[in-house]
Amino acid sequence: MTDIRTDAASAAEALPATDAVAHDVAEIAPEDPTPGALDAAALQDLLLGSWAEAHRTARGLVKDERLHRDPALGMDEHRARVLDQLGILVEEKAVHRAFPADLGGQDDHGGSVAAFANLVLADPSLQIKAGVQWGLFSSAILHLGTREHHEKWLPGAMDLSVPGAFAMTEIGHGSDVASLATTATYDEATQEFVIHTPFKAAWKDYLGNAALHGRAATVFAQLITKGVNHGVHCFYVPIRDESGAFLPGVGGEDDGLKGGLNGIDNGRLHFDHVRVPRTHLLNRYGDVAEDGTYSSDIASPGRRFFTMIGTLVQGRVSLSLAASIASFMGLHGALAYAEQRRQFGGPEGSETLLLDYQNHQRRLIDRLARTYADLFAANELLEKFDHVFSGAGDTDKDREELETLAAAIKPLTTWNALDTLQEAREATGGMGFMAGRNRLPHLRADLDIFVTFEGDNNILLQLVGKRLLTDYSAEFGKLNVGAVSRWAASEASDALHRVGLHKAAQSVHDRGDERRAANWFKDPQVQRDLLTDRVRTRVADIASTLGSARGKSKAEQAAAFNSRQHELIEVARHHGELLQWEAFTRQVESLPAGQTRTVLTWLRDLFALRLIEDDLGWLVAHGRVASARARVLRGYVNRLAERLRPFALELVEAYGLEPEHLRMEIATDAEAVRQQEAADWFAARRAAGEEPVHEKTLHAGKR
Amino acid sequence: MTDIRTDAASAAEALPATDAVAHDVAEIAPEDPTPGALDAAALQDLLLGSWAEAHRTARGLVKDERLHRDPALGMDEHRARVLDQLGILVEEKAVHRAFPADLGGQDDHGGSVAAFANLVLADPSLQIKAGVQWGLFSSAILHLGTREHHEKWLPGAMDLSVPGAFAMTEIGHGSDVASLATTATYDEATQEFVIHTPFKAAWKDYLGNAALHGRAATVFAQLITKGVNHGVHCFYVPIRDESGAFLPGVGGEDDGLKGGLNGIDNGRLHFDHVRVPRTHLLNRYGDVAEDGTYSSDIASPGRRFFTMIGTLVQGRVSLSLAASIASFMGLHGALAYAEQRRQFGGPEGSETLLLDYQNHQRRLIDRLARTYADLFAANELLEKFDHVFSGAGDTDKDREELETLAAAIKPLTTWNALDTLQEAREATGGMGFMAGRNRLPHLRADLDIFVTFEGDNNILLQLVGKRLLTDYSAEFGKLNVGAVSRWAASEASDALHRVGLHKAAQSVHDRGDERRAANWFKDPQVQRDLLTDRVRTRVADIASTLGSARGKSKAEQAAAFNSRQHELIEVARHHGELLQWEAFTRQVESLPAGQTRTVLTWLRDLFALRLIEDDLGWLVAHGRVASARARVLRGYVNRLAERLRPFALELVEAYGLEPEHLRMEIATDAEAVRQQEAADWFAARRAAGEEPVHEKTLHAGKR
Repeated sequence: MTDIRTDAASAAEALPATDAVAHDVAEIAPEDPTPGALDAAALQDLLLGSWAEAHRTARGLVKDERLHRDPALGMDEHRARVLDQLGILVEEKAVHRAFPADLGGQDDHGGSVAAFANLVLADPSLQIKAGVQWGLFSSAILHLGTREHHEKWLPGAMDLSVPGAFAMTEIGHGSDVASLATTATYDEATQEFVIHTPFKAAWKDYLGNAALHGRAATVFAQLITKGVNHGVHCFYVPIRDESGAFLPGVGGEDDGLKGGLNGIDNGRLHFDHVRVPRTHLLNRYGDVAEDGTYSSDIASPGRRFFTMIGTLVQGRVSLSLAASIASFMGLHGALAYAEQRRQFGGPEGSETLLLDYQNHQRRLIDRLARTYADLFAANELLEKFDHVFSGAGDTDKDREELETLAAAIKPLTTWNALDTLQEAREATGGMGFMAGRNRLPHLRADLDIFVTFEGDNNILLQLVGKRLLTDYSAEFGKLNVGAVSRWAASEASDALHRVGLHKAAQSVHDRGDERRAANWFKDPQVQRDLLTDRVRTRVADIASTLGSARGKSKAEQAAAFNSRQHELIEVARHHGELLQWEAFTRQVESLPAGQTRTVLTWLRDLFALRLIEDDLGWLVAHGRVASARARVLRGYVNRLAERLRPFALELVEAYGLEPEHLRMEIATDAEAVRQQEAADWFAARRAAGEEPVHEKTLHAGKR
Repeated sequence: MTDIRTDAASAAEALPATDAVAHDVAEIAPEDPTPGALDAAALQDLLLGSWAEAHRTARGLVKDERLHRDPALGMDEHRARVLDQLGILVEEKAVHRAFPADLGGQDDHGGSVAAFANLVLADPSLQIKAGVQWGLFSSAILHLGTREHHEKWLPGAMDLSVPGAFAMTEIGHGSDVASLATTATYDEATQEFVIHTPFKAAWKDYLGNAALHGRAATVFAQLITKGVNHGVHCFYVPIRDESGAFLPGVGGEDDGLKGGLNGIDNGRLHFDHVRVPRTHLLNRYGDVAEDGTYSSDIASPGRRFFTMIGTLVQGRVSLSLAASIASFMGLHGALAYAEQRRQFGGPEGSETLLLDYQNHQRRLIDRLARTYADLFAANELLEKFDHVFSGAGDTDKDREELETLAAAIKPLTTWNALDTLQEAREATGGMGFMAGRNRLPHLRADLDIFVTFEGDNNILLQLVGKRLLTDYSAEFGKLNVGAVSRWAASEASDALHRVGLHKAAQSVHDRGDERRAANWFKDPQVQRDLLTDRVRTRVADIASTLGSARGKSKAEQAAAFNSRQHELIEVARHHGELLQWEAFTRQVESLPAGQTRTVLTWLRDLFALRLIEDDLGWLVAHGRVASARARVLRGYVNRLAERLRPFALELVEAYGLEPEHLRMEIATDAEAVRQQEAADWFAARRAAGEEPVHEKTLHAGKR
């Protein structure tokens, strides 16, 4: 990291020079891009990323209609169908990529997550139930267990002969896993662990496979031996017998109907002094000897906990990718419809295509740009995940970076998917609400829980924010606290204020020159500076608040942190957006000069400028964007969307989703066919002289 | 309307004087408000508005569990249950307030809509199906028909012996009602109208009661007689016989499963030369004589069309109110939960209440302020509606104002409800996703379609925007176009730019004085000026774009309009927000000085400052808010939310929703009970000396 102050200053000082540097690829393209002439194959390669083959194989598989959601099924039938579908995935050998080669897998972690994410095209319930079985339950055995566990339990987990629940979350504790109340107390006399949920808040909840299908569970509990609590560990616990009845001491409840994902049998589990052999502790990171002695290679209980929990990151990677795919589905439908549907007469009498309305362009094309950014960022997250889990780069630092990246990208992609699916629904009106004919409402309902499970989005972003603060302190570690806080204070007021005045003066020259301002905004260096600086400056400012509480009571320190919590979470989101911008820009720069690169550059610019527009108050008030420039930004964003409009359908189609994936009437030509039928009827009536005169015409004639 | 320029200038010039005037009621309150001491009865009176009795009666009725939604029912059973519930409403004499006294009604339009809106508490499907029967189908007979029609068809419509569909929307035309393609051609020979849907795009679609229960329909069709099309009129058309079979020539399809509201049997209807007697034309605004001569009291076909369509406004009023009620339901649940649920250890070891986190305050309390604004504005809309429909003030101008007000408030309240219900769901995590235990996901799904039916929100806002432009031209009608556009141009650049510089200079003095800036922001006159000015300035600016295209080709004029469409829709939303602020402020000012007024003033300030925060880029770039002030706004908003935090639950409870209305576990004390059970268990274990030592403590001990 370079000096924040220099960056901030350079963003400001860069102003007079921008006219000279403002030549991005769009300016030097040999010709204006022509609709229909984009290199769809090149775009698809970019969008599929490093595991294109895994994506394509999974896409081929999910065309199988046996795997498709039947929207008419009630909860019970839907659950039964999804369980059957899991069996089909096993038959089709579609779910074992991530497992060790000697157990029939391929040791392919990136490809495995890529393949799983595509199950969202068939049915999000299938994606998530498969995720429970092979991403959580089996992964816990794989990553937290050792050789003996793998040999004993992975075959049944892999071939679905033992459906399993991942019993971590409790009614009383979700985000705060360290505070789980279920206990696993070692009994030296019998060499068993006693699994116990002492009160209702300790019941495990929201667990897929718990209500009906689960035969075993990986149960997270406080490991207690010799009177010492060694923190949360994971245990393999059989829960049902062959007939499906709970084993002695095990009980549960069906969570029943949910807001979505009703193909999964989520439920609660409770344990009344259930005994399992000592060897049922998944002991990769911590073990208990026969005599009850605890041992672990990781001395710090905190670090041990985070190492164990770290294996959960896979779920976040998978959700990021699946959410991005769902956004593509929604936009594909809405854009195809907007290219056919007409409403209200245009100037020439014929009705106007929805996508020719500026407002419709801004609703859909803005989100198309963001969806590209989502997917590019999710792909980079997948790279990092594979790097760590394949062992290619599995250091503590790598794992921490992966955690932070996932914690930044999962919230953005999942929230964006909900927003995009909703906008696609609204942009297709009543048609989009018909769940039998179009999948938008059910997709949105199914993905709703993505924003709070596998890590609540707000909690994840706070984690990112804390990491940003840590990095900031590391950078300024050698300064004393006073110096840092003075630096931050001056940064946040005087220095910026002077910059602001300086820019206000600049803006007199810029006034009215929209072209010059547009050139400035589309300069990638300006975009990078603005998106970087707003993160660094705010982090420094928040750090100064925390710094000023240092040495005070714990309550005062907590209050200081809480006084900036909302902004810290926002800054974490901005950090994630910067990562998205960087991922997008890397992809743009990987293309050869030409039409495709030009159009993708516009799309990246639209993504960047929408971020800047959303944060314009801060950027102008802190002197980062001159008022005169801020005033022309909206017009430029409108023109960017208009420029992209002829390419919008091509850009969404480039991702390659086929009719069997979309399964939405809005994505077919049904609307165009209906319009043609109507046009033919009117033409025939006119030809036959049967068209009535409109009263309005008569009135006009009288005047 | 006063001079915009003066207003803009006064907002700017007011700066130096604010210290003197910045004493709102909060400053002169005799004491700081005490939690628990708000006047709940006074608040409830404000929130229930003019039809408190109708609200309370309806709330009493909907406690009846026979009217409640059973979330477990599939579509078919849900539809049957809701039809039965309509019968219960008839038995309970709950649905006839709006009808004429001589037909058993009470001529009470405001009270009727208030009562209907409360059905959302029982089941949104019930609310909307009742709305179809008595708000649309019956209302079409009442408002578009004449005496003979009332006597003949209203009794059956009112007592549900004739369930009816309101057959306006077609597959091909939803928002553009004037372009409907169904025809009603008069046949002089038989004195009948021939109702015909000539192609699939003309099929009526999305009609409640069409798939199963409807026996008749009010069908909107182009009235053609003697070779002239007199535009869209409404006809009473029987569609099914006593056995439920379609009558000859009538056909249809079931829309099947929808994203929500599955208790309603929406469907399609088509007509193949279906003949109805001449007297089935609902002829209040236009009639056809036996010989086929058309006549109407309203000479202009355009004005006649809008008069007929104007009766639809009732639906928008009802949705605005129901959406606001739903927002209260969501926030009631989420705030009750946030006052019990604890997560992550606080500085003293005990876990922290969710509502003590700043981020949680901002998520819920910001929306509580907006929900108050929503409801106050919906109440004022209801007043205006009653004023017009009771005949107290039924001029063209009144009707136009009502249309515009409804078109502004319905989009805000319905979008806000979706956002609020979603945030409530996320703020309650997995618990909020359990549709059987909590109603948030189903409520959100049911209300989803509110944002595009009874007028698509974007189309409605565009209508408001056009009205703002018309008002603007009326105001400047005496100036020539050049003068207006020069005025607007100077307004948008030079003048504002100078103001901006002036304020930048001011901000040097304000720098760092957060208290002074906060005083400025909480001055209601400042809030009003900012919220007014941003609308007027942007309208003038858009008008100048349109003005510069005047005299050019139709295509160029359309392009000019389209180039500002996105901003026009935004400015219409801002206009609606101003109306909300004014409604809120009127309610605040109606209270006597005291704690309740003080707290409500904070809530109004939070509402206003969130609007200003969301639009800060424009406000700073256009010199309306000085940069130094902009920089302290967020901190002040945070403090406002913190100040309101002890009152949040009281404020949401003041609306008076009871457990039978909420029917959500999160709104009960279940979470607190579980925590107490856990705390008791830990206390007992400690008392018995059985609490294990935590490994972390051992490590700490070693150091």
